[in-house]
Amino acid sequence: MRIAFFGVGHMGGPMAANLVKAGHEVSAFDLVPALLQEAVNAGASAADSPARAVENAEVVISMLPSGAAAKGLYLGDNGILDAIGQDSLIIDCSTIDAATARELAAAAAADSGRVMIDAPVSGGVGGAKAGTLTFICGGPEDAVERARAVLECMGSKIFRAGDNGAGQVAKICNNMLLAIHMIGTAEALQLGVDHGLDPKVLSDIMFASSGRNWSLEVYNPWPGVMEGVPSSNNYQGGFGVNLMNKDLGLALEAALASKSATPMGALAKSLYGLHANAGNGGLDFSSIQRFFKHRDE
Amino acid sequence: MRIAFFGVGHMGGPMAANLVKAGHEVSAFDLVPALLQEAVNAGASAADSPARAVENAEVVISMLPSGAAAKGLYLGDNGILDAIGQDSLIIDCSTIDAATARELAAAAAADSGRVMIDAPVSGGVGGAKAGTLTFICGGPEDAVERARAVLECMGSKIFRAGDNGAGQVAKICNNMLLAIHMIGTAEALQLGVDHGLDPKVLSDIMFASSGRNWSLEVYNPWPGVMEGVPSSNNYQGGFGVNLMNKDLGLALEAALASKSATPMGALAKSLYGLHANAGNGGLDFSSIQRFFKHRDE
Repeated sequence: MRIAFFGVGHMGGPMAANLVKAGHEVSAFDLVPALLQEAVNAGASAADSPARAVENAEVVISMLPSGAAAKGLYLGDNGILDAIGQDSLIIDCSTIDAATARELAAAAAADSGRVMIDAPVSGGVGGAKAGTLTFICGGPEDAVERARAVLECMGSKIFRAGDNGAGQVAKICNNMLLAIHMIGTAEALQLGVDHGLDPKVLSDIMFASSGRNWSLEVYNPWPGVMEGVPSSNNYQGGFGVNLMNKDLGLALEAALASKSATPMGALAKSLYGLHANAGNGGLDFSSIQRFFKHRDE
Repeated sequence: MRIAFFGVGHMGGPMAANLVKAGHEVSAFDLVPALLQEAVNAGASAADSPARAVENAEVVISMLPSGAAAKGLYLGDNGILDAIGQDSLIIDCSTIDAATARELAAAAAADSGRVMIDAPVSGGVGGAKAGTLTFICGGPEDAVERARAVLECMGSKIFRAGDNGAGQVAKICNNMLLAIHMIGTAEALQLGVDHGLDPKVLSDIMFASSGRNWSLEVYNPWPGVMEGVPSSNNYQGGFGVNLMNKDLGLALEAALASKSATPMGALAKSLYGLHANAGNGGLDFSSIQRFFKHRDE
């Protein structure tokens, strides 16, 4: 298939490369020339404008850093929506607010009946490279089914959360819960160590008990407890504190809109905000463990 | 073996019954005659005083509601410590503060070199009845090994967290983390539902993603999502809000003693405290889901 791909950064780059590997013809565009060149090195062709990228594209995929960027791409001054073929499927993989996702899908449909879904991902850069991402989709059932063959080139799990915007909501609910159990795990480990327990032994006990969670299972935040995770590599790589802060901000905006109470989510946002403000925004999010460390009094 | 068992309530009763089933000779004592009668119905013999219960006992087990109760039993006016044979093994399964656990073990050792371990449990009344409890032990390695054969009659997993008191610390770290991810799960589900998502679909997505935790796996708090859990039975049975509040109180006391920061744990204590104060202390702890429900404005 002919696929236009917008945004070939840390996530989009390897995703586009996996589409090329699967035999698709990928026309890439990015505002950063170096990223575009990497996509070309991986076998994509470089489009010299957004409009040229979507020419003849059967599928349009975007992986952008914000709702404003996605809105600019599709509906801005040189927005591409008009240039996209009316039979094309549009898949926005960016993590953005649900309201903007719904607005974009409505604009696509109103203009010409084009079909758009939101399909934010879970799994990070590692999952993007390995082609094992989880796609959490929002949109009409038949559109999500049409997208499946393409998404399966980049991911191993494809969920439909509901109608347009629902993918975004499910993604931020998940990441809010992730932030909460990561911080909770860090607090519990520090409390145990402060009382003389071995962090590995305590981790094993809690993983085998009702404290079990994903952070303990595959992403232990205490350095040295688990191999091959950011905590054992000075919190390099992985999912950054700044990105977690962005997702927690989206969660709180969503909670505000629906008058939902999220006290744990709000506290998680405050703690990750403080952690970022202390200069840790570029570290992996499991570095919140350091926040609880005792230093000299 | 001859085993003295103190405290045959909701947890201790089925635990003592499982010891009887395994062929042990159990001498039970409880301040509540009806509970003691149930233990007798299950095959234990009723001791008419604590001192008589421990006569000739090779193992002494206690399952009491508080550190004060445990201290009273062993070291109070009619404390049983002196009456316990010097070669006996003492296993306190109560969930109490680590300092009292250490004090009791030290008193047992100082008095006569008797060996005592703390072995609080995880798994609730269901696990006690099924004999599938998790024991989280603190004490000397050889003492925990001696206890293993007896504990295996009542549980399926036996951990040693460290020296005396470490079992209590690991237990409260686990339960603090449990409270945090249960509340986080409830918040995330409510936020998703408030944006039109189906709680079952959202649960499946988060369980397959990085939000995964024990609450989503076996104890979903949203009514109807999962069968056979308290949320699908009006939050009856299970692990009570009052008990969770007790354990969170122990966690905060421990944090105070070690100058550890537990912001999520402290918030969990406040939320469960408010939930109990609103009249929900007797419900299962997953009923915190109700705390986030929208009612008429």
